[in-house]
Amino acid sequence: MTVNRRFLLTARPKGVPKPADFAFVSEPLPDLAEGEILVRNAYASIDPAIRGWMDDAPSYMPPIPLGAPVRATTIGRVAASRHPDFAVGDPVMGVNGLEDYSVATAGGFTSKIDLSAVPEPTNFLSVYGAVGLTGYFGLLEVGQPKPGETVLVSGAAGAVGSVVGQIARIKGCRAVGIAGGAAKCQRLIDEFGFDAAIDYRGKDLAAMTAAIAEACPGGVDVFFDNVGGLILDATLPNINHRARLALCGMISQYNATGPVPGPTNLWFLIARVARMEGLLVSEYIDRWSEGAAEMARWIAEGKLVFREQIEEGLENALPVFLKLFEGTNDGKLILKISDL
Amino acid sequence: MTVNRRFLLTARPKGVPKPADFAFVSEPLPDLAEGEILVRNAYASIDPAIRGWMDDAPSYMPPIPLGAPVRATTIGRVAASRHPDFAVGDPVMGVNGLEDYSVATAGGFTSKIDLSAVPEPTNFLSVYGAVGLTGYFGLLEVGQPKPGETVLVSGAAGAVGSVVGQIARIKGCRAVGIAGGAAKCQRLIDEFGFDAAIDYRGKDLAAMTAAIAEACPGGVDVFFDNVGGLILDATLPNINHRARLALCGMISQYNATGPVPGPTNLWFLIARVARMEGLLVSEYIDRWSEGAAEMARWIAEGKLVFREQIEEGLENALPVFLKLFEGTNDGKLILKISDL
Repeated sequence: MTVNRRFLLTARPKGVPKPADFAFVSEPLPDLAEGEILVRNAYASIDPAIRGWMDDAPSYMPPIPLGAPVRATTIGRVAASRHPDFAVGDPVMGVNGLEDYSVATAGGFTSKIDLSAVPEPTNFLSVYGAVGLTGYFGLLEVGQPKPGETVLVSGAAGAVGSVVGQIARIKGCRAVGIAGGAAKCQRLIDEFGFDAAIDYRGKDLAAMTAAIAEACPGGVDVFFDNVGGLILDATLPNINHRARLALCGMISQYNATGPVPGPTNLWFLIARVARMEGLLVSEYIDRWSEGAAEMARWIAEGKLVFREQIEEGLENALPVFLKLFEGTNDGKLILKISDL
Repeated sequence: MTVNRRFLLTARPKGVPKPADFAFVSEPLPDLAEGEILVRNAYASIDPAIRGWMDDAPSYMPPIPLGAPVRATTIGRVAASRHPDFAVGDPVMGVNGLEDYSVATAGGFTSKIDLSAVPEPTNFLSVYGAVGLTGYFGLLEVGQPKPGETVLVSGAAGAVGSVVGQIARIKGCRAVGIAGGAAKCQRLIDEFGFDAAIDYRGKDLAAMTAAIAEACPGGVDVFFDNVGGLILDATLPNINHRARLALCGMISQYNATGPVPGPTNLWFLIARVARMEGLLVSEYIDRWSEGAAEMARWIAEGKLVFREQIEEGLENALPVFLKLFEGTNDGKLILKISDL
């Protein structure tokens, strides 16, 4: 009998998630109700956002219920179907769980994917998927960059940040990236084509503020922020009149055990008549294909490069996830659950 | 010989400004260079923003130099002119100082005003001037309120806030105001027509968050913030999807003696895909007459009421200014320096 190995959330993590917050279980395959499909998960996107879904706090998605598998976007194939639009073997992408098999419902987030559209199926979880399009729509729609402007990106060596910097360059902007450590900073310039890089490690607010000022002598017109906290605070005094700040994530505080104070320099939003705006790629779902087509063209033209780091094995879900917070991942982090 | 009494800034205030930070002096009238005009100041607008100009910190205007008069918007009459466009006796408005006479330069902020356009000349410093138009353009352009939406206003009994609430109602929105004390809250409803009022006094973050939730059961679509700090923090969990937050001022922290942490709930900007934007009325200077005309129409139709609190005497500048931070003013605070 086929079993379903599942990585369940069993407690709300306090701070950094630890093994006791989870259970790794094997269960029988579930029965399907009318309209449902069973997805054999092959690859899961390991995203910082998952940490937020583990908390019992209001957000853009409901918390992961205790006892349910950890939520993740996956690609896989239909293993069984009671839905007329999905046949066994169809490749699909959806918001599922870290488990061998997920039950998806009609009208949910699951859709069929065309594997011929991409060099590798995992690209649907990186540059062709929500991650790449978060960078695309976030920079272009929220950031509204104009040629000659300076675009500052935090988490710049990460999956979203590296895309943002490259699109900024494609659009004629100066791209400045913030990352942790000399190796990542070097990669920003050598591999992703950023004009300048800032290593945030070991810098307090004053030092970080000065480093941004040095790297952005004409000020910051667009800030694409994946990090929040001190880096956001240090950016604010460096923003230009009518700057746009796209808030994509706040990874610096996802493991905080209490309220995290916001930036001390929020006043600069008024002084510089600037705009700070939250970003969720789901807002652009009706323009998804438009964005994907342009991303595909840039990749074909060699203007956009990206990295995927594929880790193996559902049983390694927690240590793989924690790489995001240690900053030890190297490109879009993907967990392989099975062959596609 | 005519003397010029001047209220000079002599030290950068730490916290609440105190008498030792200022000097009240009498000096001879200055000579004019070619192109300059001498303004006999009659009324000065006493605004929270003046506190920011006293600090030696980057902002949208340079700090008031030590030894210079405290900067303020005034109305008055031309007392002497070496500029072809200004004749002695012309009524003018400009960014001048708390002093009997100010020297204004061509190309600066000084312009002639038409006293026949308003019921009282002081209206140029309240509803017809920067204060009223801050509310007008801030709510309509930054806030983008739609009929049926909920508009929350902090500092709602103040000069800007009371205008914002009334325009929100004119535009078909539900207006909820935050003010300090039962009397002001009652006035929000009785005099300015707000739908509901919240007394912030004695409330911590949790209580304030709950009070906003209770007064805005459908959530907050537009927040017009004059206060910052705890009130901004408490608003964030109550904002709706795609909410707009217009940051007009942060009076709660202008007298702070050190860095003030920002909102702990900044994350809600992402979760609700919301926008927070700084507001300076100077951005709308080319649409000034459009806004003033609409405000005038609403006043004539009885849809917009406003209060002015006119205090007397340049020698009282400091205690009058401090009323803003004590919350003891009652309408737009104006200092009378001389008859117009």
